[in-house]
Parts: sequence; C-alpha cells; structure tokens
Amino acid sequence: MRYGLVMVNTGNGKGKTTAMLGTLLRAWGRQMRVCVVQFIKAETGNWGEIRAAKKLEIEWHALGDGFTWTSKDLDASADKARQAWALAQEKIASGAYDVLALDEITYAFHYGWLDVNAVIAWLRENKPSTLHVIFTGRDAPPELIEYADLVTEMREIKHPFQKGILAQAGVEF
Amino acid sequence: MRYGLVMVNTGNGKGKTTAMLGTLLRAWGRQMRVCVVQFIKAETGNWGEIRAAKKLEIEWHALGDGFTWTSKDLDASADKARQAWALAQEKIASGAYDVLALDEITYAFHYGWLDVNAVIAWLRENKPSTLHVIFTGRDAPPELIEYADLVTEMREIKHPFQKGILAQAGVEF
Repeated sequence: MRYGLVMVNTGNGKGKTTAMLGTLLRAWGRQMRVCVVQFIKAETGNWGEIRAAKKLEIEWHALGDGFTWTSKDLDASADKARQAWALAQEKIASGAYDVLALDEITYAFHYGWLDVNAVIAWLRENKPSTLHVIFTGRDAPPELIEYADLVTEMREIKHPFQKGILAQAGVEF
Repeated sequence: MRYGLVMVNTGNGKGKTTAMLGTLLRAWGRQMRVCVVQFIKAETGNWGEIRAAKKLEIEWHALGDGFTWTSKDLDASADKARQAWALAQEKIASGAYDVLALDEITYAFHYGWLDVNAVIAWLRENKPSTLHVIFTGRDAPPELIEYADLVTEMREIKHPFQKGILAQAGVEF
C-alpha cells in the first residue's frame, strides 16, 4: 500500500519549511532516502536546518543562492531556479529517493521562472509512483493544489515581530 | 538579544507536530539542548519521530501512553496528563534546556485535565527567560494564544483520505 504522496505546505505563516524538515526527519528515522532542493536561499547561508541536514547526512542542494529578496538581477535568479528544477528532475527520475522536497519552489512559479503546468505534466509522466514529493512556499498555485494529495495552509495568527521581538536563531532559522 | 519564544502550532491540519519536529531539528543543528514531553501517545508506539529522536539523542518523554482515542478510562488519562505536566515543570525549572516542546498538550486543556490559566501563570513565574517553549495541538485556547509570541494555524486544505489513500509510514507518522 505504498503510495507516493504529493504534499504542499503553503500559506503566509511560519512552518512551511519547518514542517518539511519534520517530515524529512521522520522519514530519516525510518531509514528512508531523502533529498532537498532549495529554490530560494536567503542572504545568510548558515541556517540551522542546513547544519542539521549535514549532521544527518541528508542530501541538500541550495541552488537558489543567486537570489535574495533584495536582488536586482532577476535574470540570474530565473537561471538558478531552472537549474534547481533540472537537478530536481534528475533526482526524481533516478528512483534513488523515497522523499524529495522542493523547498520554496512556489516563488519560481510566481515570478514566472518555471511553469507550474509543465512541472506537473513532467511529474505525472516521470515521478516514481512510490516517491513522496513535498512542495513548499507561499501562494501555491491552484493547479498545484489540484494535483496534490495533501495540502496544508500555515496561517499566521500571531508573530513576534508584532511585539518587536527579533527572529531567534535555532528556532526560527 | 536571546528571547525565549512561546510558540503555538494549532489548527485542524497536518503539520503541528511535524513543524515542532522541524524546529527541534533546527535547534539541534545549532547544538541547542532540546526536550519533548508528549501528552498524547497514539495506539502504535513505533513512530518515525520517536525513532529519529532516539538516533539524535533528543530527550523524548511520551507520557500519555495510557490514552488512546478509543480509551474508556479517561481518569487514567487525566492522571497521565498531570504526570506529563509535572515532568514538564521539572524540566522547565531546571534551566537545562534551550527548547522544550509540549506536544498535544491542548487536548489536556480541552478535556479539563489541566487548567490553561494555571499552566500560563506557572510559566510566567518559572520559565527561564531564554527558554523557547512550543505548544502543539488542535483548538489552542484563547488564553494560550494571548500568552504566545508566535502562533500558526495549520489548516487542512486537502487530505489524502479524501482520495481513499491510507496514511503513509515515514511521512505521515
């Protein structure tokens, strides 16, 4: 009864990438083979999750490193996103994984760097039937929600910024 | 600028405990000292997260093991929940941790096994100022949301049960 789920963590709240990490940890705990392709990498490269993934020997590709939220060079960012998808395609088609995460891929759809319909069509054709795939990012397109099996919206109810508290290392990044 | 956040993962969707796991993994990646007290333990004890926590040597206490959703003996469950809170109090007051998770504690509020106001009053008095605490569970009471710094609602948009797909080991549990 093994069925490769298509999972989406979306919404404006915290917890999209964090829940993806938890899913990977759970799978890792069961000796499953996991891989992460990150489409956006923020300005600092020293995140708790990357440190943890290294310690766990989880395969982790942060390809979006040309892009930051203040980036002027969107063409370079588009190229990086397409490279990230090409790498993800290779990993998916290899059959070498049980769980593959496409972290913050929705930004690539939003900016028009990747076409969501083309991505879904490719997955329908090429995704191994037992491979679980996790998409994360805000504003998941309706086509992706339609394609997915499990979709969770992380909604922000309250955020420490509202109290003037800065982001805390170790728990928020 | 270290400030111990009070975090709540609530809502009817997947990802509350999973995002808690991700937060613990991130903290663990930064060599922070983490501890989990679970207030509800489901009928099978062989979860991916417990296996993973063991491998990571994360301190994990699953105290709610008298309780299942089909349990008839709610008095025993109430006792277990109170024992879990007593243990959590000891761990919190010890000052020995950076992040402490109270997994599925909201059920203890909901069933009246613990009083949310008493729990918050105790935390205001005794929680070390740098300790991060994570509460998870459906239907977080308004008092808890008021007390918290960071609250995320995990909303179910789509669930594989809707397609008749059984829960998948490794990613869902």
